Amino acid sequence: MKTKPIDLLKERLLEIAHLETLLKLSKWDQEVMMPKNASDSRAVAVSLLSGIIHGKFLAIERDGLLNELKKEADSKSIKGKDAIIIKEVFKQIERKKKLPESFVRELSEAASKSQNAWAQARKDNNFKAFLPWLTKIVELKKKEAELVGYKDSSYDALLDEYEPGMTTKEVEAVLQDLKSFLIPYLQKIKESKVKVNTKKLLGKFSIPEQYEFNKYVSEKIGFDFNSGRLDISTHPFTESPHMQDVRITTRYKENDLMYALGSTIHETGHALYEQGLPEKHFGTPLAEYISLGIHESQSRLWENMFGKSIEFWKFFYPKVQKEFPSPYKSIKLEEFYRIINKVSPSFIRTEADEVTYNLHIIIRFEIEKEIMEGHINLKDLPTIWSAKVKEYLGVDVPDDSLGVLQDVHWSIGAFGYFPTYALGNLYSAQIFAIMKREMPNMEKKMAKGEFTEAGEWLKKNIHSLGRTYSSGELIKKVTGEKLNSSYFIEYIEKKYKDLYTL
Amino acid sequence: MKTKPIDLLKERLLEIAHLETLLKLSKWDQEVMMPKNASDSRAVAVSLLSGIIHGKFLAIERDGLLNELKKEADSKSIKGKDAIIIKEVFKQIERKKKLPESFVRELSEAASKSQNAWAQARKDNNFKAFLPWLTKIVELKKKEAELVGYKDSSYDALLDEYEPGMTTKEVEAVLQDLKSFLIPYLQKIKESKVKVNTKKLLGKFSIPEQYEFNKYVSEKIGFDFNSGRLDISTHPFTESPHMQDVRITTRYKENDLMYALGSTIHETGHALYEQGLPEKHFGTPLAEYISLGIHESQSRLWENMFGKSIEFWKFFYPKVQKEFPSPYKSIKLEEFYRIINKVSPSFIRTEADEVTYNLHIIIRFEIEKEIMEGHINLKDLPTIWSAKVKEYLGVDVPDDSLGVLQDVHWSIGAFGYFPTYALGNLYSAQIFAIMKREMPNMEKKMAKGEFTEAGEWLKKNIHSLGRTYSSGELIKKVTGEKLNSSYFIEYIEKKYKDLYTL
Repeated sequence: MKTKPIDLLKERLLEIAHLETLLKLSKWDQEVMMPKNASDSRAVAVSLLSGIIHGKFLAIERDGLLNELKKEADSKSIKGKDAIIIKEVFKQIERKKKLPESFVRELSEAASKSQNAWAQARKDNNFKAFLPWLTKIVELKKKEAELVGYKDSSYDALLDEYEPGMTTKEVEAVLQDLKSFLIPYLQKIKESKVKVNTKKLLGKFSIPEQYEFNKYVSEKIGFDFNSGRLDISTHPFTESPHMQDVRITTRYKENDLMYALGSTIHETGHALYEQGLPEKHFGTPLAEYISLGIHESQSRLWENMFGKSIEFWKFFYPKVQKEFPSPYKSIKLEEFYRIINKVSPSFIRTEADEVTYNLHIIIRFEIEKEIMEGHINLKDLPTIWSAKVKEYLGVDVPDDSLGVLQDVHWSIGAFGYFPTYALGNLYSAQIFAIMKREMPNMEKKMAKGEFTEAGEWLKKNIHSLGRTYSSGELIKKVTGEKLNSSYFIEYIEKKYKDLYTL
Repeated sequence: MKTKPIDLLKERLLEIAHLETLLKLSKWDQEVMMPKNASDSRAVAVSLLSGIIHGKFLAIERDGLLNELKKEADSKSIKGKDAIIIKEVFKQIERKKKLPESFVRELSEAASKSQNAWAQARKDNNFKAFLPWLTKIVELKKKEAELVGYKDSSYDALLDEYEPGMTTKEVEAVLQDLKSFLIPYLQKIKESKVKVNTKKLLGKFSIPEQYEFNKYVSEKIGFDFNSGRLDISTHPFTESPHMQDVRITTRYKENDLMYALGSTIHETGHALYEQGLPEKHFGTPLAEYISLGIHESQSRLWENMFGKSIEFWKFFYPKVQKEFPSPYKSIKLEEFYRIINKVSPSFIRTEADEVTYNLHIIIRFEIEKEIMEGHINLKDLPTIWSAKVKEYLGVDVPDDSLGVLQDVHWSIGAFGYFPTYALGNLYSAQIFAIMKREMPNMEKKMAKGEFTEAGEWLKKNIHSLGRTYSSGELIKKVTGEKLNSSYFIEYIEKKYKDLYTL
């Protein structure tokens, strides 16, 4: 019997996904394990396999398989899940077809080398050494935007890769709302008489013991260590070759237990999304995450809404006090809660609190949009950066390593990525509000260390759906309305009113 | 300008080698890092990429590129290094071409299932459960030998895969010499009045401290950690995706410092070979190791000739005593040296000392040759095994798990592999002898912790040559004569005369 075209398509997608597991493994290895000198040869290997995969993906369309299926999906003679797969693959291939293989290889090799240059430049606090690489990457990304095409802004073409369906205009609108709220609100907090001393939490915590505790928390909130790992890298991340091979990282400070733990909970949120994707659909868009924004909503939900709530710590804090009696035994839960939620404008995004975090994103979004639209001379970046940090956050950037060089994103060409962090915060607040409504006991259960119900809810309503819906559709389906920054603003106002007696 | 055919060949070999780095990375990951549940999906990914690589390799010949070049090499219009590359690749492809894809797949699937059956049978001490699988594998390997072809013994065809150019006859001759010496010599040691108590070295050594010390020793003798790693796995191994990405593993016992260290030094020997292959020839046979025997000579040289010598420990032992005062501070160097060189016949190959190790190999070689030549009924294996162990080593095999089932090799069809372990020992003694002659101060330098000269000698004379010579040619070139077991015999006699006052 002849294999049906839709099954042929799935077979080919599955082959591609399996080959991609090795690329993703390599990416993880490069950040976590790979010896320094291997980076050049690895870059070539990755680029070769990427090329093969790219070719196999485009071949799906070139062989004529897809167009027939697309017609059947459009005419509804194929419906349901199969139609979603066809339309999504069609869309992805349309985008890729616009990028010649030689361009993809050039970008991938440049990104790999540029990332190394960035790492060195950051170490040396030497923006100038990175400038030629950044210039090259920006040039390639502008070319990519032209190749892909766009309606309003060239930035749309890049944003669409990370948050499909979202436009620059929409992002601008929600971030503008947020900015209008945050800058004066931060001022109010600064003027509050409440003073919080974070130094009280410092101590000496051995890395192996910290690792055990991080692992314990991650597992307790749902991470399956038979299908994943927790390692160390400079910049915490989640890499998921397969839903049964989900790898998260964190980094440790010997004197600060909370430093690693926050990242671990954040990455666990990402990991739960990946582990919750449906294995039976592996290879198809039904087993892919929707967008970076939705991905980030899962990490931020666990890191902040759950992981910085008093209920969460009602359960975990006694464990902290037992495992790390000095200094925790002498600090009461209420004081601890106040300290971990301290609002403190700084120049480092990854260390920012819930209130200031989105301002860091707004700075990056505004700058990278200007870069893409050609309004910025790259050599002026450090000046522009520091001016915005001063204006929005009220702090002075001490040097470029702690300023414009702090994030890896631009070095690898990830323009359009940053706004998804802010979108994640907005989605998470909106999802959190509906979860509380649908599960009135959720927070009480959390205080008893019961995370299963919340985890199952997220799996059922978000993770297991893969890419069945766009981020806009999903938020509407799950919460009953479209993305709205007021949920986040309300969440912040309610939480920090008490904390800072505003 | 048109690319020259030889450069086209090199380009294609380079592409294949780069893709293979990802397969090798995956192999390492499977043993060292991969979460349990990922094994099924990873197996598919590896088989897909292996298929792609196999196809690319055969395409070199199918496209007609190779035959033209082979003619030019044969007629000496291409000479030198290029001719070596052409002839070696031609040979490798000729072997692969003789094995139909369906056969390769059948063998690979049977091997994978047979390995699982073996693991279970070993656990259950149930040879009968493994017998049908072994029968199947032997049948397939006999078929492989017929497909590949041979002159004298079908065993030649299998041996050639691991030790190219070596014949069964040659192996038989050197192992016969060795056996004639070892059996009576072991008897003499058994009769010696010298008694050694290895238990004195036991203590409590934390794994992180052991790791640091293993790393220190490995680095000191030449391993470049910017181009490699040291990790943990059940069975120590070396995996080398690239000469700048060489990964070794060891395993630790909390009560025995020497358990991990011996393996680490052994694997460092392998790693130095890999790190010493010439990068500029990466992808070609000029940057490939010659044979498993030569590879093993490098590991055994460092593990035994160097790593179990008094000079080596003159330098390292004070460090051991300082880092691990209990129990080492109270044990003198001379006693320590005696303990780590204790000769103790046992039924387990991997725990064998220098004197008895080759007897383990001789047993396996004799049996597997008979199997391939059809002189053994497989159901009699346990009896044959135990009788030989009794005859050669003088010990009783307690059960099949600790006897005929102890090694993985036969279960995966690796017939012809075992003798390379013994060849490694013989090569290493012969190389060691010439090193001492050419560098009269080598051992003195070693006692001062100076390993650079020895390392450079090995790199220049062996590692950097890749596959320029066959193992037979190399040994002749380096030592002035062909493989000769008398070097190993002399080495053993000289060393153990003192140790056991023979």
